[in-house]
Amino acid sequence: MLALIAANGRAVVQHDRPAPVLAPGEALVRVTRAGICSTDVEVVRGYRAFTGVLGHEFTGVVVSAPDSAWAGRRVVGEINVGCGECATCRREGPEHCERRAALGIFGHDGAFAEFVALPQANLHAVPDHVPDDAAVFVEPLAAACELAERIHVRPAMRVVVLGAGRLGLLCAQVLALTGCDLTVVARRAATRALLAEWGIDAEADTQGLARACDLVVEATGSAAGFELARTLARPRGTLALKSTFHGLATVDLSAAVVDELVVAGTRCGPFDAALRLLAAGRVQVTPLIHARFPLAQGEAAFARAQEPGTLKVLLEI
Amino acid sequence: MLALIAANGRAVVQHDRPAPVLAPGEALVRVTRAGICSTDVEVVRGYRAFTGVLGHEFTGVVVSAPDSAWAGRRVVGEINVGCGECATCRREGPEHCERRAALGIFGHDGAFAEFVALPQANLHAVPDHVPDDAAVFVEPLAAACELAERIHVRPAMRVVVLGAGRLGLLCAQVLALTGCDLTVVARRAATRALLAEWGIDAEADTQGLARACDLVVEATGSAAGFELARTLARPRGTLALKSTFHGLATVDLSAAVVDELVVAGTRCGPFDAALRLLAAGRVQVTPLIHARFPLAQGEAAFARAQEPGTLKVLLEI
Repeated sequence: MLALIAANGRAVVQHDRPAPVLAPGEALVRVTRAGICSTDVEVVRGYRAFTGVLGHEFTGVVVSAPDSAWAGRRVVGEINVGCGECATCRREGPEHCERRAALGIFGHDGAFAEFVALPQANLHAVPDHVPDDAAVFVEPLAAACELAERIHVRPAMRVVVLGAGRLGLLCAQVLALTGCDLTVVARRAATRALLAEWGIDAEADTQGLARACDLVVEATGSAAGFELARTLARPRGTLALKSTFHGLATVDLSAAVVDELVVAGTRCGPFDAALRLLAAGRVQVTPLIHARFPLAQGEAAFARAQEPGTLKVLLEI
Repeated sequence: MLALIAANGRAVVQHDRPAPVLAPGEALVRVTRAGICSTDVEVVRGYRAFTGVLGHEFTGVVVSAPDSAWAGRRVVGEINVGCGECATCRREGPEHCERRAALGIFGHDGAFAEFVALPQANLHAVPDHVPDDAAVFVEPLAAACELAERIHVRPAMRVVVLGAGRLGLLCAQVLALTGCDLTVVARRAATRALLAEWGIDAEADTQGLARACDLVVEATGSAAGFELARTLARPRGTLALKSTFHGLATVDLSAAVVDELVVAGTRCGPFDAALRLLAAGRVQVTPLIHARFPLAQGEAAFARAQEPGTLKVLLEI
């Protein structure tokens, strides 16, 4: 089958990739659409030394599954594959299993291919009126929802999102749902215009922002974002980290202690909540689509996704 | 008056230091005993570019105060001096005022002197049956209590304290009060013996500890402690930072995001709670006293406090 794989620091189209071999409990999904995420870029750069099929944001149609009732259904799929047996799997789910794999990130082939295998338990049916172009955003939107799962965001809070890229714009919309006093720092005028359409306050930089934010969401995708976020949080405020990147960050931990900050990392989130928000039209995702490429042009798609200012690049399969 | 000051990267005895000039609202306290803390060492090393009288852990007797009822009372004193007017002072108290000073750390002379000035509002009376040798520990014990103020520590939690120095041993005792499943990592056999006397489990290293702790308290005083603490916390666990030091730390923030850790900095704490614990004998502090020096030998005391394995060094004034 056709696939886009990580090889020698590049994303490379492979024409003769063998079709996935199903592990026990796994379903086979014919991928119809997939999205390129900053994590994919970091994986190619060596974030997890992965050499398989890339991709973890996708929607598709079930070809086969242990429960035949799934066959033919339009689905999205959670990306973490846990052992299902350890204390962490039982308490926290597969997201934090020590032995887990993650589709297209480590230990398991991903979805930039004609077919992807994943545990049937990871499948979520997509409502008929949610188009593929929206369903493909369920995984990153769920990650944005995880902010609200891990941090109690309230109307009385002053919140700033740093970074208005693919993930930052989804985080901003999820945060806006809470009624908090929200500002998004977005360098690009086009992004600020998009935020304005959504009724979300946007600023070009942090100049006018006081060191008084109850919550600062770091979604810049860079190590430097932590220090900037830290300087905007009020004493005893919360700093939410959304970025993962290849490499270490140099940070002023002593200052975080002196200010008694809470720093919360958040990652994968609830697919059911994300699907419900999309189905209800409470979050807008299609304005984030900046380009579409057939999978055979996956290398060009990957290059495009890395151009500054590019939001979501979709692969059509 | 006699004082120990920070000068050119050293702690230096000054014999002719002018007595403190009282700001409005301040009391004058004749210091009877003071303790040397790792923060004092960091201040001398340049943590806050401070050149005044060192010291913030002390007990003494009030000489004068705006309210004359304080005169002659034995007291301890909170170290943060806020403006009292800003939103932060009103909401959080002086600990986080943007314009604050901190006794012996920045902006205000400290307590390694015959006399110290501080706001009357910062005073706490010491019960008669709490001796000076215990009262001098109120400030660091309050900082240890702040752990429980900022993090909900419960009996069902697995907790590890990394670092069994001056502050780590106080943190351990405060955490032990909660009934949590506590282990302290203490390199020195003498410290482990002390912990055993208190009924607290101690290990020489982290070899036997699984990556399964609900809460890891980093009290090593070193930047490397963060990374070690991170590897012991379970996914979605909490990492409490107690150390402040001069310099930046290089940390794997991406790993903290992937594990969805909560990192909580905690600093100064409630003096009233600390006094109550001391008065009730629920925390032991005098076994931490390793040496005593008269203030005139403050330079030797400071050197002693920096010797590996030394717990509390007191100055008698």
